[in-house]
Amino acid sequence: MLTFHSEETKKRQARTELYGGTLVPPFECPERVDIIIDRVRQVGLGEVRLPGTYGLEPVLAIHDARYIDFLETAWDEWVAAGLEGEPIPSIWPARRLRSDVIPDNIDGKIGYYALAAETSLSPGTFEAADTSKDIALSALDHVLHTGEPAFGLCRPPGHHAAVDQYGGYCFFNNAAIAAQCALNDGMQRVAILDIDFHHGNGTQDIFYDRDDVLFLSLHGEPNDAFPYYLGFADETGQGKGESFNVNYPLPRHTDYAAWSQALDQAIARIRAYRPELLIVSLGVDTFEKDPISFFKLKSEEFIDCGRRLKQIGLPTTFLMEGGYAVEEIGINTVNVLTGFDGD
Amino acid sequence: MLTFHSEETKKRQARTELYGGTLVPPFECPERVDIIIDRVRQVGLGEVRLPGTYGLEPVLAIHDARYIDFLETAWDEWVAAGLEGEPIPSIWPARRLRSDVIPDNIDGKIGYYALAAETSLSPGTFEAADTSKDIALSALDHVLHTGEPAFGLCRPPGHHAAVDQYGGYCFFNNAAIAAQCALNDGMQRVAILDIDFHHGNGTQDIFYDRDDVLFLSLHGEPNDAFPYYLGFADETGQGKGESFNVNYPLPRHTDYAAWSQALDQAIARIRAYRPELLIVSLGVDTFEKDPISFFKLKSEEFIDCGRRLKQIGLPTTFLMEGGYAVEEIGINTVNVLTGFDGD
Ligand SMILES: [Zn+2]
Ligand SMILES: [Zn+2]
Repeated sequence: MLTFHSEETKKRQARTELYGGTLVPPFECPERVDIIIDRVRQVGLGEVRLPGTYGLEPVLAIHDARYIDFLETAWDEWVAAGLEGEPIPSIWPARRLRSDVIPDNIDGKIGYYALAAETSLSPGTFEAADTSKDIALSALDHVLHTGEPAFGLCRPPGHHAAVDQYGGYCFFNNAAIAAQCALNDGMQRVAILDIDFHHGNGTQDIFYDRDDVLFLSLHGEPNDAFPYYLGFADETGQGKGESFNVNYPLPRHTDYAAWSQALDQAIARIRAYRPELLIVSLGVDTFEKDPISFFKLKSEEFIDCGRRLKQIGLPTTFLMEGGYAVEEIGINTVNVLTGFDGD
Repeated sequence: MLTFHSEETKKRQARTELYGGTLVPPFECPERVDIIIDRVRQVGLGEVRLPGTYGLEPVLAIHDARYIDFLETAWDEWVAAGLEGEPIPSIWPARRLRSDVIPDNIDGKIGYYALAAETSLSPGTFEAADTSKDIALSALDHVLHTGEPAFGLCRPPGHHAAVDQYGGYCFFNNAAIAAQCALNDGMQRVAILDIDFHHGNGTQDIFYDRDDVLFLSLHGEPNDAFPYYLGFADETGQGKGESFNVNYPLPRHTDYAAWSQALDQAIARIRAYRPELLIVSLGVDTFEKDPISFFKLKSEEFIDCGRRLKQIGLPTTFLMEGGYAVEEIGINTVNVLTGFDGD
């Protein structure tokens, strides 16, 4: 399987993450990419290619133009305001407050566009997000042109990013951008299967009222896991999108036996939809040793996951999402891909 | 003028405030109370009394019961979850997320009940908030029984706290609790004038659809100042409350000449309402040297402010809100009160 990768993704070098009331080095660190690409090469997964350049047009097809401008300028505005740490929101349009006016003040603007506070902005974040999207679209293009699977080693991840919101380490929704491009290329139906530990709230929200993208997510139940306020089983889509959103919330300590049962259900739903393309939002924070998640998948079980995905029989684009047990992130990620390749 | 004061308010001893992407010692510090009470004694403002005890019933008349439980137990739940810093929300029911389910997880629960992240929870916060409310009600009782003015040296402040939300250093809305008690005591109309630098979003929200409490707030315009997402001039109340909410947002660098013009407009509106009681949410973060605000009031001008409030001719309860230029907080606060007393 081909991998698309760029060192530019490491331009995101945030120093701080708000975690448990303290500021710690971000769990979503650039080393994740190094360790995955090393493993890709070690097992000989296949050629590693640089991404092409796609510009902002495909981003504008998913994200709000003012949001994109904000991401591009926020760091400079923050520094100009004389603030010393990294940009972290300290207030937001909470319940009982308005969300129809975007403040001029950078502090208020950040709160407007953030959906969470763990994700500090930093210089280079916009460039990294832009490259991450290029990686996703390069992987998609390869799949569209050859029918062969491809792996986009995206960083930053994308599935939490909504039309005009960043957070959960995500800025541009790579999977949504890729799905929209496939549709623009002439496809009628695309399925996005999100197997990251966390609910793909951004992807769900983007396609919630549409029937041309089937979105399915297996994740820690929101009562107990980030992003807490979305990802319940009763969220099934709305309007034309009714029944095209499928959530599989799973409890603390879920092991592969239970997880793969939900996966099989999701696979059955995908087959019934008869999509022309499968995009896998590939997070490996389902791993038993993940420091911020609570499922119990073991390294070797990711191989079986890849096998099951292969059996769907669709052109498949894998896009990297989360995974924070950095030491094992290469093994776990590549296990899914080699499982898919049938090695 | 009588002052109600208790050392119990200093049981709130939070260590951290999220400010500009860093964790700093809280601007809303216990020393504020020491400096104000010292000044009260120094100028001989009047007797200083301990508050009575009113229990939680008056709090339940304003705040949600589950919210009160949350405030009482959050610290212990946080510690039990093994989190090391002070409780600070890192995600919340943002735009595009749900707000109809309260998570079980303490991290998600905090985000549900917080409206901002600068206000760390801490052991003792609940007790201090409970005492702060007792101080407000003791000051109110004195005013109701004697017709004489009184000053409740509340800490923590209250005006940002909504029915089920804390933030902006506020937990229980002391002014709202006092107003409701006055109404329960038989009054028909109460006016709350909020002269803190920040918009009193909590108080506004609590009484937004009611005509028995007139709420007026002079504050930094929300486009540019905390709480950013409420406090615009077009928020005039709704339903029966229409026209009983009046906001005076004022721009950066507003001096006393401009500020006192808005104050005079508010006073005219209060007179037209013919209330039986005036509650003043007294913040002195309008001061020119306040570290987190942007008005330009000078210390001696607070005396004139007190004089103008006296001319309304109503039974008046002053309740302490903000003010973070700690060195001058005693002088500025007591200047309002001596101005009112006509010294
Ligand atoms: Zn994740
Ligand atoms: Zn204030």
